[in-house]
Amino acid sequence: MQVLHMNKGNGDTSYAKNSTVQSKIISVGKPIMKEAVLEMLCNNVIESMGIADLGCSSGPNSLSVISEIMDTVEAANRLLGRRMVSEYRVFLNDLYSNDFNNIFMSLPAFYDRLKEEKGLECESCFILGAPGSFYGRLFPTNSLHFVHSSSSLHWLSQVPAGLESNDLKRLNKGKLYISKSSPQSVVDAYLLQFRNDFSLFIKSRSRELVAGGRMVLSFMGRSSTDPTTENSCYQWELLAQAIMSLAREGRIEEEKLDSFNAPYYAPCTEEIKDEIQKEGSFTIGRLEAFEIDWDGGAVTDIHTPHGKLSVRRRVAKAIRAVVESMLETHFGIEPDVMDDLFIRYGDIVGTHLSKSRTKYINLVMALTKKW
Amino acid sequence: MQVLHMNKGNGDTSYAKNSTVQSKIISVGKPIMKEAVLEMLCNNVIESMGIADLGCSSGPNSLSVISEIMDTVEAANRLLGRRMVSEYRVFLNDLYSNDFNNIFMSLPAFYDRLKEEKGLECESCFILGAPGSFYGRLFPTNSLHFVHSSSSLHWLSQVPAGLESNDLKRLNKGKLYISKSSPQSVVDAYLLQFRNDFSLFIKSRSRELVAGGRMVLSFMGRSSTDPTTENSCYQWELLAQAIMSLAREGRIEEEKLDSFNAPYYAPCTEEIKDEIQKEGSFTIGRLEAFEIDWDGGAVTDIHTPHGKLSVRRRVAKAIRAVVESMLETHFGIEPDVMDDLFIRYGDIVGTHLSKSRTKYINLVMALTKKW
Repeated sequence: MQVLHMNKGNGDTSYAKNSTVQSKIISVGKPIMKEAVLEMLCNNVIESMGIADLGCSSGPNSLSVISEIMDTVEAANRLLGRRMVSEYRVFLNDLYSNDFNNIFMSLPAFYDRLKEEKGLECESCFILGAPGSFYGRLFPTNSLHFVHSSSSLHWLSQVPAGLESNDLKRLNKGKLYISKSSPQSVVDAYLLQFRNDFSLFIKSRSRELVAGGRMVLSFMGRSSTDPTTENSCYQWELLAQAIMSLAREGRIEEEKLDSFNAPYYAPCTEEIKDEIQKEGSFTIGRLEAFEIDWDGGAVTDIHTPHGKLSVRRRVAKAIRAVVESMLETHFGIEPDVMDDLFIRYGDIVGTHLSKSRTKYINLVMALTKKW
Repeated sequence: MQVLHMNKGNGDTSYAKNSTVQSKIISVGKPIMKEAVLEMLCNNVIESMGIADLGCSSGPNSLSVISEIMDTVEAANRLLGRRMVSEYRVFLNDLYSNDFNNIFMSLPAFYDRLKEEKGLECESCFILGAPGSFYGRLFPTNSLHFVHSSSSLHWLSQVPAGLESNDLKRLNKGKLYISKSSPQSVVDAYLLQFRNDFSLFIKSRSRELVAGGRMVLSFMGRSSTDPTTENSCYQWELLAQAIMSLAREGRIEEEKLDSFNAPYYAPCTEEIKDEIQKEGSFTIGRLEAFEIDWDGGAVTDIHTPHGKLSVRRRVAKAIRAVVESMLETHFGIEPDVMDDLFIRYGDIVGTHLSKSRTKYINLVMALTKKW
C-alpha cells in the first residue's frame, strides 16, 4: 500500500500519458454507469449528492468519470424539468502516494468547464481529495450516493498472506503471479487474499452509502473459473520472461524474481458474487464481462507520438506506467535496466500477439445498497 | 493564485524545513484556539465535527494544528465524561498548486498516532484535501463547525487591482509593497484589495459554518493605522533593496522590480473589524496582537543544521521558502541568481537588525457565527 502508485507527472513514461487501456475500460462501462445514475435519481430525492471515485489515479481519466456522472445528472435534470440534485460533493480517492498534485492542478480548468458547459457555479460543486486505502473506511456513515471505481479493485491490499514470508516465497519460483506452474497453495493464497480484501471493500462501502445508493465497479477479471487461464495472467507471464532474461545476464537478481508476487488478482464472476452475497447489503443489478485489447484498441490519432508506436510498444508502456513503482521498490532496478526491461517486454509481447489474440477480461458490475 | 505556493518538498530551501516563524505563530495562537474549541463544545451538540484548516501549506505545521484541535476536543470528552464529538471530518485547504502529495504521504503515520495516543479508530476521523482559493466557497452550506487559518490571510487573491495594469505599474517604482515613498494611490489600491478579499472570505465562511461555529484566524498585521509603519512592511523594503542591488549589476531587470507589487497586505485591527461588522454574521470574541521575531524566536536545538545558522540566514531562508515561487514567475530569476539574492538579503537583514529591533505583528482573532 505504501509502494503502489501509477507513474507520476506528465512525462513519456507517466501514467497520465499511458492510460489508454484504462480510458477504454471506462468508456466500455459508461452505459452501465449512466443507467445506474438514472435509476438512482428516479428512486431517490437527493439534495446534495455525494460521489466518490475510488482509485482515481492521476491523469486525464481522473476527472473524465466525474464529468460523465455529472453530465448524466444534468441531462436528467433537463429531461424531468426540475433539479434532481442541487449540489455535488465529489471525492477523489487513491492511495496516499498517488499524484494528487497533478489532479488538483487541473481543477481550475475543470471548474471553468463546469461553469461554461453545464452552467454550474462553484458553490454547487465541491471537489475534494480523499487519500487512503479503499480496503477500509474512507468516508462518514451514509454520506455517499454514488461510488465508482475503475481499474483499481484488481489490486490487492498486499502480497497474498503467506506468500510474502521467507519460507514460502520460493513457492512461485520464476513467476510474478498465478501461472500454470504455480502450486495449488499459491492459487489458494491469492483467492483468500482477494476474498478478504473484496469483502472488506464491500462492507466499508455499505456503511458509507445511503440506502438506495449505487456502486459501479469495473476491474480486471477472467472468463473462466480456472485462475491460470490466459486472459487472467498472461501479461504477468510475459513480464516474468523479460525479467528472467535480464536475470540470466546478471542484471537483475533471479532470487528477487522468485520472491516477488504481484498484489493483483483477476477474479471470475462467481468469486465476486460469492462475496457480495455473503456480505448481504447489496443487490447485483448487472455483472458483465468485456474483452479489451492489450493496447486499449484502435488508436484515434496516428499522428501523435503515442499513435505512431507499434502495438507492442504501447502495451509495454501501459504496463510500465502501472507496475514500475513496484518493480523499483522490490528489485531496486536502475533506470537504464528498467528501460531495457520494457524494451524486452515489448518484444516478447509482440512475438506473443503475432501468434495469439490474448485479451484482457474486464468485469463491470452495478450494485444497489438495499433499503 | 496560480503562482503562489510555498516551496515544495523537503529540501534545504523547502517551506517544510523553513517554517519556524509560522510554527511560532501557531503556538502563540494556541490558547485562543483552545478557548474557542471549548466554548463551542459547551454550547453545541456535535455528532460529526467539520474542521477546516485554510492555507494549511505543506510541512510539519499542516497537521500540528489539526492535532491540537482534536487534543482539545478529546480532553473535553474526558473532562465531561461523555463523547462531545464522535466523528471528525477534517479538511485541509490550500491553493491548487500547494504540495498536497507531501501532506498526504504523512497521513498513515498521523492516523497511527491518532490511534495510539487518542485511541481514535480510522472510522471516526476522515482527513480530506480541499484544494482551492478561500476567497470564495470551498465547502457545502452549514457543513463546518470550526475553521482555522494561520499565516495565510495576509496573502491577497491578486496583485491589487489597478497596480497590475501597464499604465500604473510604475507608480510604486523600486518597491515590492507599500513603502514610505509609495504614492497614496498605491496605499489605496492595497487597502481596497484587502477589503474586497477579506469580506469575500468572511461571507464565504459564514455560509459554510453552522450557527454557533467558531473561526480562529491569525495572520500578519500592523500595530498602527499607518500602513507604512516599519513592522508592517520592512521585510519587503529590505528585499527590494537586495533585488535593486542585483538590478544595478544587470543581473535582474530593474523594470521588473518597478512592475512587481506583492499580493500581500498587513491590516490593522480597525480595518479587520470594519469588514467583519459590515458583513454582519460573526461576533468578535478576541482580537489580539503579538510581536514575533523575524526568525521565529529562540532556536530550540542549536545542533541541527537550522539551529547553527545565524539569525540573518534564518530570516532569509524563511522568506525565500515563501516568496520564491512568485519571484521565479515574475522575474524569471535563474537558480544561481536566486541563491545570490537571498545571500544579499540575509546580509541586509543582518545590518538592519543590528540597528533596529523590527518585529512582525501577528493578529489573532476568534469569531463566532451568530445564531
